[in-house]
Amino acid sequence: MSTKKSKKLDLILEEAAKLFKQKGFAGTSMRDLAERIGIDAASMYHYISSKDEILRTICYNISTVYISQLAEIEQKQATYTQKLKDLVRLHIRVMVTRSAEVSVTNNDWKYLAEDSLQQFKARRKEYERGVAALLEKGVAAGEFEALDTSVALFTILSAVRWVELWWRPERGITPDELENAIITILFKGLEKTHHEHVS
Amino acid sequence: MSTKKSKKLDLILEEAAKLFKQKGFAGTSMRDLAERIGIDAASMYHYISSKDEILRTICYNISTVYISQLAEIEQKQATYTQKLKDLVRLHIRVMVTRSAEVSVTNNDWKYLAEDSLQQFKARRKEYERGVAALLEKGVAAGEFEALDTSVALFTILSAVRWVELWWRPERGITPDELENAIITILFKGLEKTHHEHVS
Repeated sequence: MSTKKSKKLDLILEEAAKLFKQKGFAGTSMRDLAERIGIDAASMYHYISSKDEILRTICYNISTVYISQLAEIEQKQATYTQKLKDLVRLHIRVMVTRSAEVSVTNNDWKYLAEDSLQQFKARRKEYERGVAALLEKGVAAGEFEALDTSVALFTILSAVRWVELWWRPERGITPDELENAIITILFKGLEKTHHEHVS
Repeated sequence: MSTKKSKKLDLILEEAAKLFKQKGFAGTSMRDLAERIGIDAASMYHYISSKDEILRTICYNISTVYISQLAEIEQKQATYTQKLKDLVRLHIRVMVTRSAEVSVTNNDWKYLAEDSLQQFKARRKEYERGVAALLEKGVAAGEFEALDTSVALFTILSAVRWVELWWRPERGITPDELENAIITILFKGLEKTHHEHVS
């Protein structure tokens, strides 16, 4: 695909994600999308064949980002604590920078056609397994509290999910500050550690 | 309302919540519900007038439970740490014991009619404000890390949301163990504290 064509496709996907987020996947038509982008529907089909293909591409792109970030982190030379912190930071960063696409991936994946649905679920499972493995290795290495892996896994992934809905530059908190605050809660906990504990 | 009538209503609400969770609010009819309970549709209208009223009652009941738990905790003589831990524990417990109704409240509140929708949003806001106040007082008392209140609030509430979807007795973890594990992550953090830190 030429760079120009690929850029146009990125724009279509981004605007489609915003529309799906606003009006729902079912409530959005290819005509709505063409109008929003300002091209006629016929020429949009030059870039993408259907609403289903748009959804499939968005879900595929976002899950690919997550899986690539995980793969990169797995190969790093670092403690499990550092690896998992980096992963959580990158996970949040995707929500901040691509919030509409993440929202569509989180909420509309259930409208994927059967083949893509199975593929998407497998990729999500792959990501969850990777994060679970980091947790288990971190426990084995004595870095993490020995907690039930599923509970730790879903608590972490769930703890960051609101970001996609909430963060906007106007919130007065930078992505860095946001990531640091969430990482503090998940890794050090809300409770202040008293080194000189008087009981 | 007589006890017998009220018990029948509770049953209707519970079964309705399960159906809404399974088939969606829009996809469930009063006829489906009557069939599931095994009474005829006409006599069901003796207990409840419409699908909208069912949804309103479920959302009202669940938000009332949350708000009452908060009010009770606010009046306790305890540290803010203890209060917030108790609140998180009770919050999770509602998800474990009334998962279908919590699911409907979390996902289908947007189908509430205008008046009930405004009331529901106000009650949700009230709960969030109460939790935020516990966080802020805990920071002021030196008990909690000084983090952005909104970030801490939404991280906590979001961190427990998966429970409603996941927990079943067959998971091999008791509600107590589940609550303890989540509370450990949120208050002490995943990272093991090394009192004898060698760097």
